[in-house]
Amino acid sequence: MNSIDKKYSEEIAKLKQEVYDANMLLVKYNLVIHTWGNVSGITKDRKYMVIKPSGVDYATLKPEDMVITDMENNVYDSKYKPSSDTPTHTLLYKNNPEIQGIVHTHSTNAVAFAQAGKDIPCFGTTHADNFYGPVPCARALSPEEINGAYEHNTGLVIIETFNNRKLDWKATSATLVKEHGPFVWSFKSPKDAVDLALTLEEIAKMAIKTLIISNNSAQEAQKALIEKHYYRKHGKNAYYGQK
Amino acid sequence: MNSIDKKYSEEIAKLKQEVYDANMLLVKYNLVIHTWGNVSGITKDRKYMVIKPSGVDYATLKPEDMVITDMENNVYDSKYKPSSDTPTHTLLYKNNPEIQGIVHTHSTNAVAFAQAGKDIPCFGTTHADNFYGPVPCARALSPEEINGAYEHNTGLVIIETFNNRKLDWKATSATLVKEHGPFVWSFKSPKDAVDLALTLEEIAKMAIKTLIISNNSAQEAQKALIEKHYYRKHGKNAYYGQK
Amino acid sequence: MNSIDKKYSEEIAKLKQEVYDANMLLVKYNLVIHTWGNVSGITKDRKYMVIKPSGVDYATLKPEDMVITDMENNVYDSKYKPSSDTPTHTLLYKNNPEIQGIVHTHSTNAVAFAQAGKDIPCFGTTHADNFYGPVPCARALSPEEINGAYEHNTGLVIIETFNNRKLDWKATSATLVKEHGPFVWSFKSPKDAVDLALTLEEIAKMAIKTLIISNNSAQEAQKALIEKHYYRKHGKNAYYGQK
Amino acid sequence: MNSIDKKYSEEIAKLKQEVYDANMLLVKYNLVIHTWGNVSGITKDRKYMVIKPSGVDYATLKPEDMVITDMENNVYDSKYKPSSDTPTHTLLYKNNPEIQGIVHTHSTNAVAFAQAGKDIPCFGTTHADNFYGPVPCARALSPEEINGAYEHNTGLVIIETFNNRKLDWKATSATLVKEHGPFVWSFKSPKDAVDLALTLEEIAKMAIKTLIISNNSAQEAQKALIEKHYYRKHGKNAYYGQK
Repeated sequence: MNSIDKKYSEEIAKLKQEVYDANMLLVKYNLVIHTWGNVSGITKDRKYMVIKPSGVDYATLKPEDMVITDMENNVYDSKYKPSSDTPTHTLLYKNNPEIQGIVHTHSTNAVAFAQAGKDIPCFGTTHADNFYGPVPCARALSPEEINGAYEHNTGLVIIETFNNRKLDWKATSATLVKEHGPFVWSFKSPKDAVDLALTLEEIAKMAIKTLIISNNSAQEAQKALIEKHYYRKHGKNAYYGQK
Repeated sequence: MNSIDKKYSEEIAKLKQEVYDANMLLVKYNLVIHTWGNVSGITKDRKYMVIKPSGVDYATLKPEDMVITDMENNVYDSKYKPSSDTPTHTLLYKNNPEIQGIVHTHSTNAVAFAQAGKDIPCFGTTHADNFYGPVPCARALSPEEINGAYEHNTGLVIIETFNNRKLDWKATSATLVKEHGPFVWSFKSPKDAVDLALTLEEIAKMAIKTLIISNNSAQEAQKALIEKHYYRKHGKNAYYGQK
Repeated sequence: MNSIDKKYSEEIAKLKQEVYDANMLLVKYNLVIHTWGNVSGITKDRKYMVIKPSGVDYATLKPEDMVITDMENNVYDSKYKPSSDTPTHTLLYKNNPEIQGIVHTHSTNAVAFAQAGKDIPCFGTTHADNFYGPVPCARALSPEEINGAYEHNTGLVIIETFNNRKLDWKATSATLVKEHGPFVWSFKSPKDAVDLALTLEEIAKMAIKTLIISNNSAQEAQKALIEKHYYRKHGKNAYYGQK
Repeated sequence: MNSIDKKYSEEIAKLKQEVYDANMLLVKYNLVIHTWGNVSGITKDRKYMVIKPSGVDYATLKPEDMVITDMENNVYDSKYKPSSDTPTHTLLYKNNPEIQGIVHTHSTNAVAFAQAGKDIPCFGTTHADNFYGPVPCARALSPEEINGAYEHNTGLVIIETFNNRKLDWKATSATLVKEHGPFVWSFKSPKDAVDLALTLEEIAKMAIKTLIISNNSAQEAQKALIEKHYYRKHGKNAYYGQK
């Protein structure tokens, strides 16, 4: 077992608590059942990640059970194995030096879009307040990608989706992995990523009901409205909230 | 910071408590997640409005955090900024001298109709008991209206809808803002507006299921039934309830 | 105010408690919001009915608030007005000398079938265990029936449905009133009627999902299965349960 | 009443507690209403089964109320009658010497697939993590099978489905009985069977939403992904969890 330098003790302890709290929020928000889902956070120097252990019951989970890894997925000072999705998390952190927290869930409505292989269309302001434009569904992994370094390749396909579509990681902070489910991230904190995962589930639910009402013919919200609502909450001219 | 005359102290304190209670009811009724939604009330002389602050967590919200504005959206004696939807609220109060409370939510099923750009049809007595005829979906705002005084223009489009369709503000006390969500008001109190917002969400949910069962071909309830149920609960011949 | 003979004191007190408990079960089962819904029971000699008062909040409701009426809808010894649906209840009790409890709700999925004007098809054993064959949707009331003795006429249309279709009131103990919602009754007790109202809501929810999966082409369960399950729970050869 | 040898006392007492706990989990997981559903377990020598009594209220159920039967459905040392589905359980235990727990529910979404007479398609990794390939819907029982030894024949039809389709009982540990509902089993324990019943309900819910989004045209997940996820959690190369 590898050990990390003692100078990290305080930061890691605080991060473990933060990541633990964010994981428990998945349960409170009804975004997971059983041992599903995982949230991670990262140290300030982006050398270590803290993530939920694999397959441990939320009811018995403790802050100290959170697992420490480096960006090459090596484990440090931990009694548990990390989430099997660890290589997806670390790749996204490496690719995006501003991401502060990542969450993966199998929440019902977001998964349904991933299983249908469709983007979540931006049908209205609830969506636009939080995600700029459609939440993309990535292409399916090839059998070679699946049988190879699967979780790493999952991260690569997410990155490919953002590159090909020229998406902004901060403005559209989620992807659906096809036939699988959502990954959501935040430039602020692990908790904020979980808050966004709840928002994603809610807009997916609204979108399904919008499709039913419109007989699958609903149109995306007009661009002016999407921009208005996104920038009402984000960027230098934001006027929602107290900041 | 503007200050209001001391003669309002007692009335404002009471109104803040009432508006706070009504906002917290949004959480109890599961009509909002995060910091979404807002409820307002108005002083007897209709000079001041009290409304939820923008983007503050419900868990930490206190009655004294409610924000005071006048009808031109100036803020008085408040440590927080008011809800960003403030200009929609004040315009509706000015336009309708009998409205006593207004609520805006992003409740799932009502938003779905707004996103589909459709009225909620009056399919039965549950609807007719509470809203006379379909709950209208307003036209989309133009890009100019969105990029201008957006929240004020949202109020104007609601008013335009009621004028064009010759609707009665008391009998049909809600509108869907297209691509956005519901605004609901009450001629009684902020709490009553929230009760109506829950009713609206419930009839929207029933309407979606009615569309599924009927393969999108359900007809609106017959006029005699709509009138019977509306007037069973409202007006001088009402016989529902204890009054 | 009329008064009933003192010999009923004990029976009425017990019945009020029973009817109150059954009404509160509507809240526990999530079958109602606000002041919606009502349950009634009847004295052994079928002279008096006890029913929820009209439009009173469940949170403040007390057993002694239940209202006593006779079979001609006259009120006795009560501080509140009875449910506005009272004439529907009394007519059903008079028409069916074995009914011991009646409940009316606006539960979401059952109302959706009533609004679509469709029977709830008997798609499987969950339904057949509790209701023999489809739960019928009555015809719409005519404008004359609506503008006349509306609640009485609602009961007449339910009776007409059972007569025309030659249905057994005990085996199929529920009807959907078109454009309105369900009435459910029990030959056992008010509580049992509420239990059946929850079952009805559940089978309506299952039926809607069955329609979605089958693209509205699902077939009713075969007759042999419907009979098997109904008679597994009911009649002299029943073998479900401990009796 | 038959009696079992005293040497079983300790094992049976432990099994009754285990089966009771698993039955109560059905309530906690919202998989049942009323007295619906049942879970069973089996002794190590596979001579006796312990199962929920028929039609007893969960609120008053106690561990000692669990009923003991042998594999020919004879009851031992029990004050209650066993679940009416007992012959289905015992037949599955006899046919599969490794099954350790069986559960039958009428959970909403799984029943909807059974009522539509359709397999639950394997649309994604949430499904593949837990069930290998589609969850099969058995053929309908014939009128003769229904009118004969119905519950025994239900077990026979499940076995026939697995034989005809050459399915692996461990990998695909659930079946839908057509026009009825799901049976789920576990090679580990009664509790694990209930955990799988919750998973089944969740993937059925996801599948219905996937069908809505895709206008009933969604494709099953690719074979490489199904195998990857199933073997990530099961078999000698599994790397999910802490084992």
